[in-house]
Amino acid sequence: MTKRKIILDCDPGHDDAVAIMMAARHPAIELLGMTIVAGNQTLQKNVRNALNICQHLDLDVKVYAGCDRPLVVEERHAGDIHGQTGLDGPVFQPLIRKTEDKHAVLYIIDELIHADEKITVVAIGPLTNIAMAIRLQPAIIEKIDQLVIMGGSITDGNVTPAAEFNIYADREAARIVFNSGLDIVMCGLDVTRKAACTQQVIDSMAALNNKAGYLFRDMLEVYNRNQNRVFGITAGPLHDPVTIAWLIDSSVLTLKECYVDIETAGYSYGRTNCDFYWKAKKANNARVAVDIDVDRFWQIIRECLSLY
Amino acid sequence: MTKRKIILDCDPGHDDAVAIMMAARHPAIELLGMTIVAGNQTLQKNVRNALNICQHLDLDVKVYAGCDRPLVVEERHAGDIHGQTGLDGPVFQPLIRKTEDKHAVLYIIDELIHADEKITVVAIGPLTNIAMAIRLQPAIIEKIDQLVIMGGSITDGNVTPAAEFNIYADREAARIVFNSGLDIVMCGLDVTRKAACTQQVIDSMAALNNKAGYLFRDMLEVYNRNQNRVFGITAGPLHDPVTIAWLIDSSVLTLKECYVDIETAGYSYGRTNCDFYWKAKKANNARVAVDIDVDRFWQIIRECLSLY
Amino acid sequence: MTKRKIILDCDPGHDDAVAIMMAARHPAIELLGMTIVAGNQTLQKNVRNALNICQHLDLDVKVYAGCDRPLVVEERHAGDIHGQTGLDGPVFQPLIRKTEDKHAVLYIIDELIHADEKITVVAIGPLTNIAMAIRLQPAIIEKIDQLVIMGGSITDGNVTPAAEFNIYADREAARIVFNSGLDIVMCGLDVTRKAACTQQVIDSMAALNNKAGYLFRDMLEVYNRNQNRVFGITAGPLHDPVTIAWLIDSSVLTLKECYVDIETAGYSYGRTNCDFYWKAKKANNARVAVDIDVDRFWQIIRECLSLY
Amino acid sequence: MTKRKIILDCDPGHDDAVAIMMAARHPAIELLGMTIVAGNQTLQKNVRNALNICQHLDLDVKVYAGCDRPLVVEERHAGDIHGQTGLDGPVFQPLIRKTEDKHAVLYIIDELIHADEKITVVAIGPLTNIAMAIRLQPAIIEKIDQLVIMGGSITDGNVTPAAEFNIYADREAARIVFNSGLDIVMCGLDVTRKAACTQQVIDSMAALNNKAGYLFRDMLEVYNRNQNRVFGITAGPLHDPVTIAWLIDSSVLTLKECYVDIETAGYSYGRTNCDFYWKAKKANNARVAVDIDVDRFWQIIRECLSLY
Repeated sequence: MTKRKIILDCDPGHDDAVAIMMAARHPAIELLGMTIVAGNQTLQKNVRNALNICQHLDLDVKVYAGCDRPLVVEERHAGDIHGQTGLDGPVFQPLIRKTEDKHAVLYIIDELIHADEKITVVAIGPLTNIAMAIRLQPAIIEKIDQLVIMGGSITDGNVTPAAEFNIYADREAARIVFNSGLDIVMCGLDVTRKAACTQQVIDSMAALNNKAGYLFRDMLEVYNRNQNRVFGITAGPLHDPVTIAWLIDSSVLTLKECYVDIETAGYSYGRTNCDFYWKAKKANNARVAVDIDVDRFWQIIRECLSLY
Repeated sequence: MTKRKIILDCDPGHDDAVAIMMAARHPAIELLGMTIVAGNQTLQKNVRNALNICQHLDLDVKVYAGCDRPLVVEERHAGDIHGQTGLDGPVFQPLIRKTEDKHAVLYIIDELIHADEKITVVAIGPLTNIAMAIRLQPAIIEKIDQLVIMGGSITDGNVTPAAEFNIYADREAARIVFNSGLDIVMCGLDVTRKAACTQQVIDSMAALNNKAGYLFRDMLEVYNRNQNRVFGITAGPLHDPVTIAWLIDSSVLTLKECYVDIETAGYSYGRTNCDFYWKAKKANNARVAVDIDVDRFWQIIRECLSLY
Repeated sequence: MTKRKIILDCDPGHDDAVAIMMAARHPAIELLGMTIVAGNQTLQKNVRNALNICQHLDLDVKVYAGCDRPLVVEERHAGDIHGQTGLDGPVFQPLIRKTEDKHAVLYIIDELIHADEKITVVAIGPLTNIAMAIRLQPAIIEKIDQLVIMGGSITDGNVTPAAEFNIYADREAARIVFNSGLDIVMCGLDVTRKAACTQQVIDSMAALNNKAGYLFRDMLEVYNRNQNRVFGITAGPLHDPVTIAWLIDSSVLTLKECYVDIETAGYSYGRTNCDFYWKAKKANNARVAVDIDVDRFWQIIRECLSLY
Repeated sequence: MTKRKIILDCDPGHDDAVAIMMAARHPAIELLGMTIVAGNQTLQKNVRNALNICQHLDLDVKVYAGCDRPLVVEERHAGDIHGQTGLDGPVFQPLIRKTEDKHAVLYIIDELIHADEKITVVAIGPLTNIAMAIRLQPAIIEKIDQLVIMGGSITDGNVTPAAEFNIYADREAARIVFNSGLDIVMCGLDVTRKAACTQQVIDSMAALNNKAGYLFRDMLEVYNRNQNRVFGITAGPLHDPVTIAWLIDSSVLTLKECYVDIETAGYSYGRTNCDFYWKAKKANNARVAVDIDVDRFWQIIRECLSLY
């Protein structure tokens, strides 16, 4: 079995952390490097969280710090959901791990340009790093097999009524990426909201009785408390891992091809308008997840966590 | 049983025609007058269709012609769905009926200002007439019991990926109406798409063996052919009658209160952003239909048509 | 000499008051009626100011109250410039005069529809009344000889960096009016800023030693103090009278024909984009004042005030 | 006399070419490097033009190719003004000169980061390269002495009624740059239109009887023909050299400090809204040129060209 080579661009973040745990150990995936972007929290905090997870789980992954703010708009974090640290809950040992010297954008360009085969990019934070890399070196587009995104929504959003956080946080970057010609898989709120992490799910992961299961529990219990306070729900949506689950087993999602346009004006700023009826007369640019096999999703995560 | 007094503002239109049939005869409703607006077709065509329906079914309802175009934006019709005449399908006798002399906007104002009790307004076309009446005589707001609207969408639209036709066709009017302080019930695509009129439904209405049943069949068969050509579906959504069905039996819809904002800029122009998570920190201005009892819906329509 | 028949739509306001004084007495003009709109202050205050001026100067002009707020956007006043009353400065006798019963919008429609000849409309406040009349009765467009507007700017604005007050205060109304097909003369900040009312000008008007001259002085001294506080200038621009001055002697302005588009989105909301280089490829819809003969302007005003 | 060290970011372009001639030889300036951006023509053509000018005039300047398109919006050129080649008119010898290997954005970052003293950046094309450098390495902001821009307009634009070409061509980049905290001098159409290059000016430069004078003549005669065709004027505005002229003698421009906001929505997209009356309540971010000493301007250019 050939492993799928991926670069994981993220802003950990509780759900990012689960995605990292999955990508770093599953035999179907070879995690080439992790690039960090400002999003759920400041770049500095997200980097620290990424390093903490790698050190805590003894993951052999290189971590690159990227853009510290969105392209055009003001920085916006999700501290209400992920807490002051961006990963409230787990307690880590003193941090020894360090990032690589290279800027994440330059790493992405170098990794792709020098690759012998196409590489999959998984982007589960704001799309700033990806957009910057595309504009600085457009030749990388040809070297990206697929871009699998957590972001967007066909229905209402979670940061405004119109917009999902990752897209909203850097809508101009999203616009660049969606109009780049890349083969995009968009995993939005329409499926991630169904991936609601109940206490039962948390307990089943903790029951693995390993470091990954305990970390999952320590993180998700705080995450759910925050989701409850902000959205009035008890089982928070485990957004980011949907992307990795799909890479591991594509049957977990139902995709529908369409043209996705990123709104960059008005009150609907950051909305992903999904044109299922060809109203805009534009070529399809994405496959949008419209349904998820929830049981299979939790099964995949449990498989991943059991590898620790 | 006291009848509920209503003014019906419409742009017939196949589904408008069914709503008219329901409102004109159901014992729970007293139809005070019908006001016509440009929308599905030109004002002139919509007026002609309204008069044809009234004459054909011998309805004793006064018809008032209103605004012949939206407030600010260019006029946009739905000829692809409703055909060249705006009501393709049925064949009518030569038209003798005429509209009243008064402008629809002035009729709405006069009817409301002089009413002893509050009146319900049902608006199933673009909201131009209603918005004009509100701005010309703000005192009518106090005299409107409820404003029941067919329009909008929580999820994607039917005229652009972001917008539903009635709102899109006059988004500035919609913005005026939603910010007017009126008690609004919004019946959007989220429920009307579930009110999909299958051939089986059409047959059951035709089986009433009366003028209304036959008219329903003659209209809906053409409507469904057009829906199929435009949206690739065989059972077209019977949008407008959902409003009248709710007036007859409010159990048919599940409503959820929230703040609805009308987008008037960017590519998402005409979108109804439904703020279910209090992100905009604005007072709720509408109850939005989020689910429909489809069986009960068809039952209500059959009851109404059986009165002919 | 045939008098030019005009309807004056205004929101007095200090500079409106001077325009009223000019229009009500100059032999070249027959002032058919005055319609009031919300703008510089609330509708109620503007109406009161209009009546006060008419009573104070014994003007035989009918006054009609119109729209009490803009079509779509929130109401915005210019109390910083015109004061708490909207006409701070002069002291008037107890008010006896009353408005006519008819709504300004309905008056405008009736006056125009029943006119034997075309009538000139002068609009020196937000364009709400004019836009409402056009939409309620489009046939009036053919009966309007010219629409002479105080509003807009080729260069920067006075309420935002992009927008002039009258256009900003109801940009959707402005959009309706500029796209109506009317023959529009736009007198914007480009010329009205040059009509800077120095103390010397004030003194020369007061030297007429009549009621009009004293009223001019009492108003403009307060106006200039407010202009100084808000804009840091000692001689405030006498915006509105430029329109009437042009009707009296068209040589006072240099006009340049072009397409004017009203911005209704973004930060530039309310801007009048003047397309002098045919970039939008749209038919010209206005003649825009680009220069003013300032000496002749003050001369005309003095002539008008000397008629009292 | 210490020379002022500058990086010149440009898209030659006829007026860029004159700016290059000035910057490369005037003793007050040390031209560290030239970075090229897509704008007046494609990146490839602009690079070729830059190299041709350097080779033709034997200039010892390193040329770096930068971004080949704007950040977010579609590419837009000014081929109507600068011709098919982007520098129609002069005939050059076969091109031998080559660009440096490094990307312009990385060059800008490296040059600035490693500089002992602050460096002035002059940007006379769309601001894509500058914005990318700022986002990739924010630390360069502290190393930039001043950013002198040709772009924007207080009054109407030259590519739309609202916008000047360089800002319009990459408005998101402009927004990034104007909100970066840099000390910006903005030379817009308000002064560059006064720098109208008459035939008399052209003749006076040609009368220098040197390579630079002849090149000026060969370029400007074509430029003026194009300006005449597009804008109906005979003496085209020599936009870009205004920046270098100001570096050589700051008395040539009158500057006014204010907050400049870049419009990125609506029809006014690309407008530079200059807030001279503190309406936006934001800290000043630019000094905007409001007047130019035209005679001194041509004198400076003649001095520069006489150095060849």
